[in-house]
Amino acid sequence: MRVLVAPDSFKECLSSKEVATAISKGIKNAIPDAEVFEVPISDGGEGVLEAVMQGAEMELVSVTVMDPLLRPIASTYGILKNTNTAVVEMAKASGLELLTEQEKNPLLTSTYGTGQLIKHALDSGCRKIVIGIGGSATNDGGAGMVRALGGKFLDVEGNELKDGGGNLGNLAHIDLLNFDSRIDECEIQVACDVSNPLTGKNGASFIYGKQKGGSITDLEVLDENLSHYASIIKKDLGVDVLTIPGTGAAGGTGAGLLAFMNAALVNGIELILKTIGIETYLKKVDLVITGEGKIDEQTLNGKSILGIATMAKLHYVPVIVLTGKIGDKIEHIYGVGVTAIFSIVNRPMQLSEAINEAPLLIEQCAMNVMATMQCNKK
Amino acid sequence: MRVLVAPDSFKECLSSKEVATAISKGIKNAIPDAEVFEVPISDGGEGVLEAVMQGAEMELVSVTVMDPLLRPIASTYGILKNTNTAVVEMAKASGLELLTEQEKNPLLTSTYGTGQLIKHALDSGCRKIVIGIGGSATNDGGAGMVRALGGKFLDVEGNELKDGGGNLGNLAHIDLLNFDSRIDECEIQVACDVSNPLTGKNGASFIYGKQKGGSITDLEVLDENLSHYASIIKKDLGVDVLTIPGTGAAGGTGAGLLAFMNAALVNGIELILKTIGIETYLKKVDLVITGEGKIDEQTLNGKSILGIATMAKLHYVPVIVLTGKIGDKIEHIYGVGVTAIFSIVNRPMQLSEAINEAPLLIEQCAMNVMATMQCNKK
Repeated sequence: MRVLVAPDSFKECLSSKEVATAISKGIKNAIPDAEVFEVPISDGGEGVLEAVMQGAEMELVSVTVMDPLLRPIASTYGILKNTNTAVVEMAKASGLELLTEQEKNPLLTSTYGTGQLIKHALDSGCRKIVIGIGGSATNDGGAGMVRALGGKFLDVEGNELKDGGGNLGNLAHIDLLNFDSRIDECEIQVACDVSNPLTGKNGASFIYGKQKGGSITDLEVLDENLSHYASIIKKDLGVDVLTIPGTGAAGGTGAGLLAFMNAALVNGIELILKTIGIETYLKKVDLVITGEGKIDEQTLNGKSILGIATMAKLHYVPVIVLTGKIGDKIEHIYGVGVTAIFSIVNRPMQLSEAINEAPLLIEQCAMNVMATMQCNKK
Repeated sequence: MRVLVAPDSFKECLSSKEVATAISKGIKNAIPDAEVFEVPISDGGEGVLEAVMQGAEMELVSVTVMDPLLRPIASTYGILKNTNTAVVEMAKASGLELLTEQEKNPLLTSTYGTGQLIKHALDSGCRKIVIGIGGSATNDGGAGMVRALGGKFLDVEGNELKDGGGNLGNLAHIDLLNFDSRIDECEIQVACDVSNPLTGKNGASFIYGKQKGGSITDLEVLDENLSHYASIIKKDLGVDVLTIPGTGAAGGTGAGLLAFMNAALVNGIELILKTIGIETYLKKVDLVITGEGKIDEQTLNGKSILGIATMAKLHYVPVIVLTGKIGDKIEHIYGVGVTAIFSIVNRPMQLSEAINEAPLLIEQCAMNVMATMQCNKK
């Protein structure tokens, strides 16, 4: 019996690593010679870098890059051990979290630092790049990022534009003569859980611009500028980013990655799971045990359990879910690859008791699940 | 997949029949073409008659018999449909429940009515008799019962003794000339969960005499009388009941059944399960699902779960237990035939919630268990 143990964390209770440890113990109690692979997972809520780091061995690389206002800061990205795959977290260079409330200004902020992280990864020999683009402070369509990689954004007089979404209205021509040619050798995948278009009422500016510090007037300027940006991209690159869902992600960085770097926009959890090599495990195991603090309707909206179940189903591997709370209306989870769900709660009890006893409860539940599976062998 | 669904009741929540119904629903949800046999069980706490009636089809027979003080009362026993097996509940004729507090008197009370029930069963053609002897009001060593079947208990002058444990001290000779010879054709099994000897500090009188209304002086007389009774049995029948554990059950009725009727003293739940034909099911099923309101250390002392697990183990059939509460220190239950235990509680909750939602919780738990078993088939 080979089992992949791939739980998410039990929020406010146990980390995914701790949950995995408890499940493994329970499996071993029931089937001492079971082969168990522990791969803690995460839906990327904390960021792709951390999510991948939980499930795979990764080397962290420190780099000085420009923050969204082009001030040098210490940043970091990851390289998966023994691979040429880099994991880049946009927020580490161009994130809202790097600015004070006063500094937030989507007219000025730039994705330049993200481009620097990518460039450093290329310099390090990476040719597969996984990019998480959540939490950006920017609305520049990824132009800063492209500039960091050698692209030039010129006005009608041939002068380079200043960074920031507020300046894209003056764009007349994109010069890619010196754009880093190593990008052509790369496979770039972007964790993207939004399907917003680049422009319009549901576009990058109007939906996300406000939280990045934009006034109503700013948002109108930004939206107009991204439309103009798209038209120049179409003219100079031949790519129509306006029609593609997801290009509005991260202030249009989705569009930039797509148009300039031929990136694929991928469901976040799926990308994380692929990056940590979950498919290698799915090919060789007989069972997946996963888990999350609670399972409810929300869980079915692209989170870890759904992600792992969907992928396991493709490999015909059954998935057992252990959880603290089985909520209402979760019946359709059985249709998307989940075989069975068990609550670790072993008697009527308070939430605080369940949290205190969680490691043992998880272990015992896993043991009973394995014993149940095993008994059908004869 | 053939499944025997044989749960006990969830006390103060659902009857064993209701639990069985919920489990069956869950099984069918997971495996629509599963063949399910519902056999509600009971540990006989309410009496063997009711316990057997829950799990098997039985005809109830009404008879007028003598109560412990030899007054006529309406009593009842059962005959398993299409068999010659009678189920006799001693308490229905000779039980403490038939007397007021003032009437309780182990010097006088008689097992005569129990003998009448047995005689009626013989008249009805029964040759297998299952007897539950809990809750007796008597301390007469089963002498009254034997008298009802034609035995005579004589003093030195050849006069018949009056009934009651208080008179056994005058016993000089037992006359079995007119004892019902059909008893020789019978297989008699007695549900007996105590191992007390007939006499002494741990014997029938000293341990159970007080609750039957005996004073300290009474108990000494009763104990002495049972010793004497045993010596006459040894002299006239050649059976030494003093050395056999369990003969102290029901005021020495255990001894009487053993000596006069060659009865076997059997673990109660085991006898109940055999009587309802559980072995027929165990021979043809792939799995047993049982359950009880809670599982704790006490459960392991001869109750339903242990009983069914022990028998299932002999047939190599795995046993899954569903319960409301998994208590501490139950680890050794896995050694006696239980494969796995699951709590139906699906989140932190109050006991009252668990009770309210029990049918659905049981159904869902059973469904997930079956899905888990099933997924190991490929």
